[in-house]
Amino acid sequence: MKLKVFADRGSQPSRAVLIFCKANGIEFEEVQIQLAKGEHKSPEYEAINPMKQVPAIEVDGKFRLFESHAILRFLATAFPGIAEHWYPADVFKRAQIDSALDWHHSTIRRGSVGVVLNTTLAPLFGQPLDPQAAAEAEKLLSASLAKIESFWLKGDGPFLLGNSEPSIADLRLVCEIMQLELVDEKLQKRILDPYAKVRKWVEDTRKAIQPHFDEIHVAFFQMKEMIKKALAGAGSGETKTG
Amino acid sequence: MKLKVFADRGSQPSRAVLIFCKANGIEFEEVQIQLAKGEHKSPEYEAINPMKQVPAIEVDGKFRLFESHAILRFLATAFPGIAEHWYPADVFKRAQIDSALDWHHSTIRRGSVGVVLNTTLAPLFGQPLDPQAAAEAEKLLSASLAKIESFWLKGDGPFLLGNSEPSIADLRLVCEIMQLELVDEKLQKRILDPYAKVRKWVEDTRKAIQPHFDEIHVAFFQMKEMIKKALAGAGSGETKTG
Repeated sequence: MKLKVFADRGSQPSRAVLIFCKANGIEFEEVQIQLAKGEHKSPEYEAINPMKQVPAIEVDGKFRLFESHAILRFLATAFPGIAEHWYPADVFKRAQIDSALDWHHSTIRRGSVGVVLNTTLAPLFGQPLDPQAAAEAEKLLSASLAKIESFWLKGDGPFLLGNSEPSIADLRLVCEIMQLELVDEKLQKRILDPYAKVRKWVEDTRKAIQPHFDEIHVAFFQMKEMIKKALAGAGSGETKTG
Repeated sequence: MKLKVFADRGSQPSRAVLIFCKANGIEFEEVQIQLAKGEHKSPEYEAINPMKQVPAIEVDGKFRLFESHAILRFLATAFPGIAEHWYPADVFKRAQIDSALDWHHSTIRRGSVGVVLNTTLAPLFGQPLDPQAAAEAEKLLSASLAKIESFWLKGDGPFLLGNSEPSIADLRLVCEIMQLELVDEKLQKRILDPYAKVRKWVEDTRKAIQPHFDEIHVAFFQMKEMIKKALAGAGSGETKTG
């Protein structure tokens, strides 16, 4: 199958899909859709993904798919030779990974996007920072990290559900948590420091998927520096009030 | 397999799971977890679902699973004889249903919960109504319904993705949209009236899964009447300001 991945390495779900392909030797063409330039809103890209988001994939020039969790499930089952630990065929094991992925949407994902946007990125999109929305998102994110610590990581192995090797849920959730690199260091520490098991799991997941994890994150860390400079230049002091 | 379903028929994801079991002749014991009485917060239920939400399932007294999408995927693949249309084995067809389910989390689901809570149910939980949160949720919900109309229902068949029979995505999303029955009739009309294809699809899905769809919704419509009375009694006028 001929695979195209439409992605922006600054986007956490994009990175998860790119890392999965690299880690599993899936050949693909990466088509960069630069969110900062609004390329996801072009008519050409809307024909690929009507939701105007990244990532999306195209297979053999005809089958198109969006939503990173659906893409990861598809890649893990449609391509030959993918190691079983990513998304096991066993219905009980697979169901638990699906449960973690579904849980993620309204917890870690919603919290992290809310924190990063409302404390940091909003001025880049011409919006004011929103401390109240940021505080609500931080509360949700912290409660969700506590659940990872107390429930999802309670087993013997280093990965979610006590597994000894990472699944697509570990990869996807860890890419989401990496996005907190974009917020100010003090805030990042306040959010992550209470959760030692979470921090170890992020590091274990990163190490288990090397060199691909770091390779795909290089552009993200470059973007982080560019964002810092852009925000310093823009004077990011404007804040939404009441 | 011996299946227990922990559910509240007032909860839209609970109803989707119950209807799926009934429609597919899966034998199960329904354990009612009454949200209004706070039964989902009991230590006994926390042992079943640490996230303290419904629905959850237990199989053979040991395997436990939460998150309605994960439960629907599991039931459709772990039980024998489930008709293919619910969750096809074909990786391409399955991926598109996964895509619809994943898309749902941050669109229809988030919008409908926000509208119903902030326009109607909040006083029952001792919270003020929040017109700003309600307006934001309505905007998201309307934009998402427009996407169902223009994209998910653009095919030839009456169901999502142009299918001729319903999938677990049709069932789950339609149960979510049914929750709008709880809001005042004028608001419900304002939200749904612009989307004729959506309204037809809701009705087609309901008809395709009879008598089970209506049977499971009886308790929901009874609850609707009780909520109306409770809100009238409580004097639901309090509104959050700035």
